[in-house]
Amino acid sequence: MSRKHDNSAILLIHCPDQKGLVIAVTEFIFKNGGNILHLDQHVDEQQSVFFMRVQWDLETFAIPNDRISEYFETLVASRFDMHFQIHFSGEKPRMALFVSKLPHCFYDLLARYESGELEVEIPVIVSNHDDMRPVAERLGIDYHRIEITKDNKLEQEQKQMELLARHNIDFVVLARYMQILSEQFIDAYPQRIINIHHSFLPAFPGARPYHSAYQRGVKIIGATSHYVTTELDAGPIIEQDVSRVSHEDSVEDMVRKGRDLEKIVLARAVWNHLHRNVLVYDNRTVVFG
Amino acid sequence: MSRKHDNSAILLIHCPDQKGLVIAVTEFIFKNGGNILHLDQHVDEQQSVFFMRVQWDLETFAIPNDRISEYFETLVASRFDMHFQIHFSGEKPRMALFVSKLPHCFYDLLARYESGELEVEIPVIVSNHDDMRPVAERLGIDYHRIEITKDNKLEQEQKQMELLARHNIDFVVLARYMQILSEQFIDAYPQRIINIHHSFLPAFPGARPYHSAYQRGVKIIGATSHYVTTELDAGPIIEQDVSRVSHEDSVEDMVRKGRDLEKIVLARAVWNHLHRNVLVYDNRTVVFG
Amino acid sequence: MSRKHDNSAILLIHCPDQKGLVIAVTEFIFKNGGNILHLDQHVDEQQSVFFMRVQWDLETFAIPNDRISEYFETLVASRFDMHFQIHFSGEKPRMALFVSKLPHCFYDLLARYESGELEVEIPVIVSNHDDMRPVAERLGIDYHRIEITKDNKLEQEQKQMELLARHNIDFVVLARYMQILSEQFIDAYPQRIINIHHSFLPAFPGARPYHSAYQRGVKIIGATSHYVTTELDAGPIIEQDVSRVSHEDSVEDMVRKGRDLEKIVLARAVWNHLHRNVLVYDNRTVVFG
Amino acid sequence: MSRKHDNSAILLIHCPDQKGLVIAVTEFIFKNGGNILHLDQHVDEQQSVFFMRVQWDLETFAIPNDRISEYFETLVASRFDMHFQIHFSGEKPRMALFVSKLPHCFYDLLARYESGELEVEIPVIVSNHDDMRPVAERLGIDYHRIEITKDNKLEQEQKQMELLARHNIDFVVLARYMQILSEQFIDAYPQRIINIHHSFLPAFPGARPYHSAYQRGVKIIGATSHYVTTELDAGPIIEQDVSRVSHEDSVEDMVRKGRDLEKIVLARAVWNHLHRNVLVYDNRTVVFG
Repeated sequence: MSRKHDNSAILLIHCPDQKGLVIAVTEFIFKNGGNILHLDQHVDEQQSVFFMRVQWDLETFAIPNDRISEYFETLVASRFDMHFQIHFSGEKPRMALFVSKLPHCFYDLLARYESGELEVEIPVIVSNHDDMRPVAERLGIDYHRIEITKDNKLEQEQKQMELLARHNIDFVVLARYMQILSEQFIDAYPQRIINIHHSFLPAFPGARPYHSAYQRGVKIIGATSHYVTTELDAGPIIEQDVSRVSHEDSVEDMVRKGRDLEKIVLARAVWNHLHRNVLVYDNRTVVFG
Repeated sequence: MSRKHDNSAILLIHCPDQKGLVIAVTEFIFKNGGNILHLDQHVDEQQSVFFMRVQWDLETFAIPNDRISEYFETLVASRFDMHFQIHFSGEKPRMALFVSKLPHCFYDLLARYESGELEVEIPVIVSNHDDMRPVAERLGIDYHRIEITKDNKLEQEQKQMELLARHNIDFVVLARYMQILSEQFIDAYPQRIINIHHSFLPAFPGARPYHSAYQRGVKIIGATSHYVTTELDAGPIIEQDVSRVSHEDSVEDMVRKGRDLEKIVLARAVWNHLHRNVLVYDNRTVVFG
Repeated sequence: MSRKHDNSAILLIHCPDQKGLVIAVTEFIFKNGGNILHLDQHVDEQQSVFFMRVQWDLETFAIPNDRISEYFETLVASRFDMHFQIHFSGEKPRMALFVSKLPHCFYDLLARYESGELEVEIPVIVSNHDDMRPVAERLGIDYHRIEITKDNKLEQEQKQMELLARHNIDFVVLARYMQILSEQFIDAYPQRIINIHHSFLPAFPGARPYHSAYQRGVKIIGATSHYVTTELDAGPIIEQDVSRVSHEDSVEDMVRKGRDLEKIVLARAVWNHLHRNVLVYDNRTVVFG
Repeated sequence: MSRKHDNSAILLIHCPDQKGLVIAVTEFIFKNGGNILHLDQHVDEQQSVFFMRVQWDLETFAIPNDRISEYFETLVASRFDMHFQIHFSGEKPRMALFVSKLPHCFYDLLARYESGELEVEIPVIVSNHDDMRPVAERLGIDYHRIEITKDNKLEQEQKQMELLARHNIDFVVLARYMQILSEQFIDAYPQRIINIHHSFLPAFPGARPYHSAYQRGVKIIGATSHYVTTELDAGPIIEQDVSRVSHEDSVEDMVRKGRDLEKIVLARAVWNHLHRNVLVYDNRTVVFG
């Protein structure tokens, strides 16, 4: 759905399911002069958890932006044991792009960035190679080659993290970045590192999934975008898509068809992340919208 | 989503969009002791129309079932110029099945009926042929052959409508019924006649769509389930799906592949209709869930 | 493609790739007065294996049907180290249907059988339960309940195999038959037992795949039809298809959506098997058509 | 399938169906020392037309490349009333890219070009605007702004065609080029102008298809790539794909989702055109591979 509103707030909630949740939240907004633009709600009945995403117009809202969080905590959240985040439509999240040598996801995201499709700032690109430097320079984006070897990983990651801090990075996108991040890095950006894996997870995790897909003789290949957790390729899935293949497709054909899947799936995940559509719970995602 | 609740109410609403709609509805439910199980809401921003589907547990609800409609009208709907329907999860809608000679959608719906997948009563089957009589008899469903010719259409439809009235039919499913219904019939069941058309509408309306699809050389064929209106194949679309074809597919192959599409698409439309997920506005549908 | 020809032969070949294969086969057909109706050819370049399916009209073919195999062996196959099978369009393969209690694939296949969509004979149905007996009786198909326990498996399978032998069964379809076949059974019907598994293999093999899919939070579910081998759910895949799910789908919803996938995927696999479109090599399939 | 062979010939044929076609062609190749790498054949049974694409290794082929066409005409084609084309894998076709202001297909094709995914030369870009000039300059591609108005169309197209001639252009890709080409232009490049239309043709031809799709309430949108003919949006379809939408999708959302479809569908069409997989007959395409 279209959700562009110059001056609106987005509230993401999860908490144990119980009576009166919807009314409590909508009352908070309505009584203070907010007009609800979108409301999505979901109950996981198996686990009895309540999820909500609500967006409202701030035009005539009585509580100043920088106090909404405090007021909501006091008046609503504390009563229901809620976890919540508040975002404002005016804020552009700041994203770092990590890339190695494969250009397709990288080019695709930058074309969307250039054309204004993604409402995001990309102040910095990090790579273990120099291949993508010219593209970054053309767009005026800071490009840092930080080579990673078995021996220097932790200290090089330290440099990466300083860079992210310096650029006030909100989240990281791994656009076919061929390095496995360490636990320290991952823990610093919980649910804020988006990866694209070139298989239909949980099938074919790890290296060379197209080769494995070919070997197994599957009739459909896929791509999966997920938040990175410390267990490899096992983080909460944001988006997946698939493409039909046949015996006529060599590994090379799968790689080619897969590139388009990877581009689309990663871009959708980033779009949903940017629109604050994604809630994570119990290693699964609720993706509203 | 799963929505089986032995004792719940479902409220479907549409009205001009304005402030305070969500709060008004949820307050009505909450203040009277209802627990909201599902809430879906949608605003058509182009037309400024608000849509809502809300389902709540009646276990501890203060208003008796047969008064909810009146109370809601008085306390909420009248203030906001709302159109609304109330349904109860315990009620099984009564469906009439119309069929000609093509058996695939017919068999498929009856298999779902027999296996309990569809929570519906099917007391009567109507056909212009005798082919399906044995199946109906086996299942103990009343079967009526009512032959339609150019000359007797209106009077034969009269018989059909009396039959539907006698069986207290709520809605009609045309499972590849090869007759065009008259205006009088259609007007008697507004948004309550579901048809399956064997093309991706609005492409290829009318007769022989697979032949037309073959002729045009499309690479994808489709099926469309819609509510019947007086304009042929132009009613509000409930569900569509598609299947890839190639130059290798003859018209006969398209017919074969299309059969599976038709079955699935019609069954999904019926399922959504039964679960009260469908709202019609301006010849389009909102399908929640 | 449509391949109904009252009097044609179908030749399936695989052999090491080398020069002159296509010409050798087409010459054999042409020089003896056959008219090629369809020719599909595939080379697995990674393994250097050649595959072919060719169908020709027998109307004016010089070699009598019962000698074609011998002539082809002598004149062509032996020169190129070919594995081949010859089938005739007039022959209806004989299929045994194995089922437990879940009816959807069973009903679906029988509806296709009844309506003439599948050119096959189904002389016998085998089950470890009595639930489906009435359907079998209605269609005049021999129904055998053969209960399987941990203790009697081999001797009960012996009965099943005698039954198959008595009915001259060509291939077996497991329409959600909930028993694991023993090695002796599987070895007796190599590439002639078709199973439907309710996941997108190799993801979620074994029991309760929808529960696992829900747990993992996938955004797409699938179904896989494959030839049964002695390694569970690891046989050559004939067909797969998928359906999108979301956080709104409970396990029960996945089961419901999955039923439609299973029906379609199994039916397509059976259809391709019947049309002699499937060649197995190195635990993968070539599916022509 | 993978078809990269440094030194191979590709022969595309269509002719009235008759006995002996496959053998005649394969014999021509085999007897002259060629090794068949791929052979695809198709018979349109409704129209009794035979289609073939065959690729063979030229390594040990006896006939020199520049005489193959003449020899084939004399020895085979003339006997069977064949239309044929011969291409060589070593030749890189020369493509002109036409664009207006919408960048997504343009960027996508150029990214594929830059990364070597498309084996093509793009010597010239033509636009009625200046927006894309920087991208062209960065890649060293000749960029020509040729403004088109109602009054100057034919003379401006004359300039375009001179440009194409000067650059030895083989085929033209309209990457969301918002002008309708005149008959004279189209006739000069029969089956050599590829367009992307942002709907599932034949639904919603002409202007503003996403608005029409929204209005009609379809549940699936599509994109279609086709060869341009003088009838608007009615040329032979090369590729189509679709994407699911719902009531939640505004026109703007459809435009966004459609962009990804358009990119993928156009790229696949160009890829198939480049690999000589496409044959046109009776305003439909045979797409091998």
